[in-house]
Amino acid sequence: MATGEDGLLISNKMWKMWFPIIVNAVMSTCAYFVTIRIIPKLKDMFIKANLFGIDMSKTTSDKVPEALGVVSGCTFLVTMFLFIPIPFGTSLFNGDFPHDEFVELIAALLSICCMLLLGFADDVLDLRWRHKLLLPTVASLPLLMVYYVNINSTTILVPKPLRDLLGLSINLGFLYYVYMGMLAVFCTNAINILAGVNGLEVGQSIVIAVSIVIFNLIELSRDLWKHQFSLYFMLPYIATSLALLKYNWYPSKVFVGDTFCYLSGMTFAVVGILGHFSKTTLLFFIPQIFNFLYSIPQLFHFVPCPRHRLPKFNSKTDKLEISTTKFRYNDLSALGRLVISVFRLFRLIQWQTKEDHVITNNLTLINLVLKLTGPLHEAKLTTILIGIQICCTAVAFTIRYPLAHYFYD
Amino acid sequence: MATGEDGLLISNKMWKMWFPIIVNAVMSTCAYFVTIRIIPKLKDMFIKANLFGIDMSKTTSDKVPEALGVVSGCTFLVTMFLFIPIPFGTSLFNGDFPHDEFVELIAALLSICCMLLLGFADDVLDLRWRHKLLLPTVASLPLLMVYYVNINSTTILVPKPLRDLLGLSINLGFLYYVYMGMLAVFCTNAINILAGVNGLEVGQSIVIAVSIVIFNLIELSRDLWKHQFSLYFMLPYIATSLALLKYNWYPSKVFVGDTFCYLSGMTFAVVGILGHFSKTTLLFFIPQIFNFLYSIPQLFHFVPCPRHRLPKFNSKTDKLEISTTKFRYNDLSALGRLVISVFRLFRLIQWQTKEDHVITNNLTLINLVLKLTGPLHEAKLTTILIGIQICCTAVAFTIRYPLAHYFYD
Repeated sequence: MATGEDGLLISNKMWKMWFPIIVNAVMSTCAYFVTIRIIPKLKDMFIKANLFGIDMSKTTSDKVPEALGVVSGCTFLVTMFLFIPIPFGTSLFNGDFPHDEFVELIAALLSICCMLLLGFADDVLDLRWRHKLLLPTVASLPLLMVYYVNINSTTILVPKPLRDLLGLSINLGFLYYVYMGMLAVFCTNAINILAGVNGLEVGQSIVIAVSIVIFNLIELSRDLWKHQFSLYFMLPYIATSLALLKYNWYPSKVFVGDTFCYLSGMTFAVVGILGHFSKTTLLFFIPQIFNFLYSIPQLFHFVPCPRHRLPKFNSKTDKLEISTTKFRYNDLSALGRLVISVFRLFRLIQWQTKEDHVITNNLTLINLVLKLTGPLHEAKLTTILIGIQICCTAVAFTIRYPLAHYFYD
Repeated sequence: MATGEDGLLISNKMWKMWFPIIVNAVMSTCAYFVTIRIIPKLKDMFIKANLFGIDMSKTTSDKVPEALGVVSGCTFLVTMFLFIPIPFGTSLFNGDFPHDEFVELIAALLSICCMLLLGFADDVLDLRWRHKLLLPTVASLPLLMVYYVNINSTTILVPKPLRDLLGLSINLGFLYYVYMGMLAVFCTNAINILAGVNGLEVGQSIVIAVSIVIFNLIELSRDLWKHQFSLYFMLPYIATSLALLKYNWYPSKVFVGDTFCYLSGMTFAVVGILGHFSKTTLLFFIPQIFNFLYSIPQLFHFVPCPRHRLPKFNSKTDKLEISTTKFRYNDLSALGRLVISVFRLFRLIQWQTKEDHVITNNLTLINLVLKLTGPLHEAKLTTILIGIQICCTAVAFTIRYPLAHYFYD
């Protein structure tokens, strides 16, 4: 049994661990209600500013305001700004202020704010692809700088089977920074390309965020600051995104825009990098990684890529069907032919021929699901896709915990 | 005569003082050329996004792209991001990294980035007045937090004549933070309301920035970090703004938007607050302060305020004339009548009566200048207003240096 003094120490430690998280949760709840309230009020402002889209999977052609992610992003940022003093509570008044932790928080917010600006600029101005790759890299610079100054651990453990070959660990050095910079670019764009049905962008992002929260809670006692840090960001992020989902779920009253995808990707990258669990973060991106790999032939134009790859809406059945791309097999490059043949072999694509043309589905996870299930109602499709995301989180935890023991001590 | 070792110490100190500033100046020069190059390329993107205005003081009605301040703002931010590692050069590699200075830089960038986002959102969405007051306050929170942690000097020296009454100094405590928060709100909006003729927003901002640079150079040896810090921001700010001015000068090929005014105001507030020379910064705002005070009767609706208070363009003479507001004297509140009578007494307004109405000029510095000079060509008007700004800088330095000695030791 603990003596009185031990008990005091434990409760002091518990207090230090949980107090800021509880305050953060309360503030996040408020942020949820604020966001719920202001989105409908601001909707018309967006339409008036020409920021709207027509939902291509509906029979009506109402104007749906676009880029509302900037609203949830702003309430998220404001919540974080107001929260900043809390975790530093007592150390504000005595001399030993933890500048290193403080600067991590501020730099993370800078990167997120930067991405929010870029995302909004993209929605308004329709930026080119090279900007979309360049700017997240630039936005992650302050983050990498802080990582360099505070952590600068660029060593990765080698899995057991490879240790005879490579040794216990490898120091990746500069390459690790390249990897982290690319992580930010990947996270922001990966969510952006798994999109196109009502509620999917926000839904998948919330699943990823909740997965990170579970991981943080499991690891909290092992490395307090890193996982507290992540929770500080994740809770208000989830709250404001849930509020957005309420309006973005089928039938969407608002669209979230690239703004939201960029904001989300950067937020995940930030907590992964500064929490030093970027590989675990990537594990929660299994559907996005699959979707990206599956999309590569079209993204890099080995196979023709139409402007939109959304599933096709059938107004008679009120269901979504796969959308297709059409090409001459012999017009493809050797690489294109190879990829398409492999996909066909593994039944990963629908394959039809019409005269001398081949018709396949567009290479997105959404179309692949539709190929397997047949036409689906939009809300059901989103639900299935989010279900897949949740299953992949279960897989990720299996890899992270039971399986990892085979590869690491 | 200095011995060899002293000489080495001095040159070491000079190196530490000037090296980062020189690198910053070189990077700023690059930023200038980059901004010059990209503005024309992005112009059409803005027009396509419905971000344009018609210049009301021209005979043509071409679409002029609006909110281009976001471009110069982004190149400014990117330059700063790339510059961050430089001032910390050697301390990156040995253990004594100055986290407190680093966090100042990052927090300052966060506040500026936040204002850039808000400004752009304002240009796109046409935010309401209460947002314009609320959001700069929120954006300055990280800044105030850093001030609290790093500096927390809330004591002001009392001028000599009042010392018998108040003592040598007063500790304003919390009020000092309110003052700093209001400074950010004031700076951002003060520039925004002294606007409306081609090149004025950018021109006045550059004069203020150059004034701050001169002040920093004078004080550099007294408090190295604070004034270096300010120069790091001012040089790329001036460079990118000069590039913007090239296109915004009469006849404007682009408009800068609220984006630019907010960005500028926040940048000045940031260096003033963290450099602990906010009162001196305010001294460089004499024309803006005058314009604000002079505008108060209209801003607070003691006197009717039309939607636009720009001077009126006379297409026959190609000159700008004062714009006017019309009201019944007896309809004004007591306060309104008092203010108008005082202004009339000091000949600060043009006063005309027509039947039972009074016609006066709109209460802006621009109209006041036109009242004194008569109708002017737009470019000449801007030049005169910028001339006034420069004269006021001279006045500010007179107050700051020779005069201050009478009031402070």
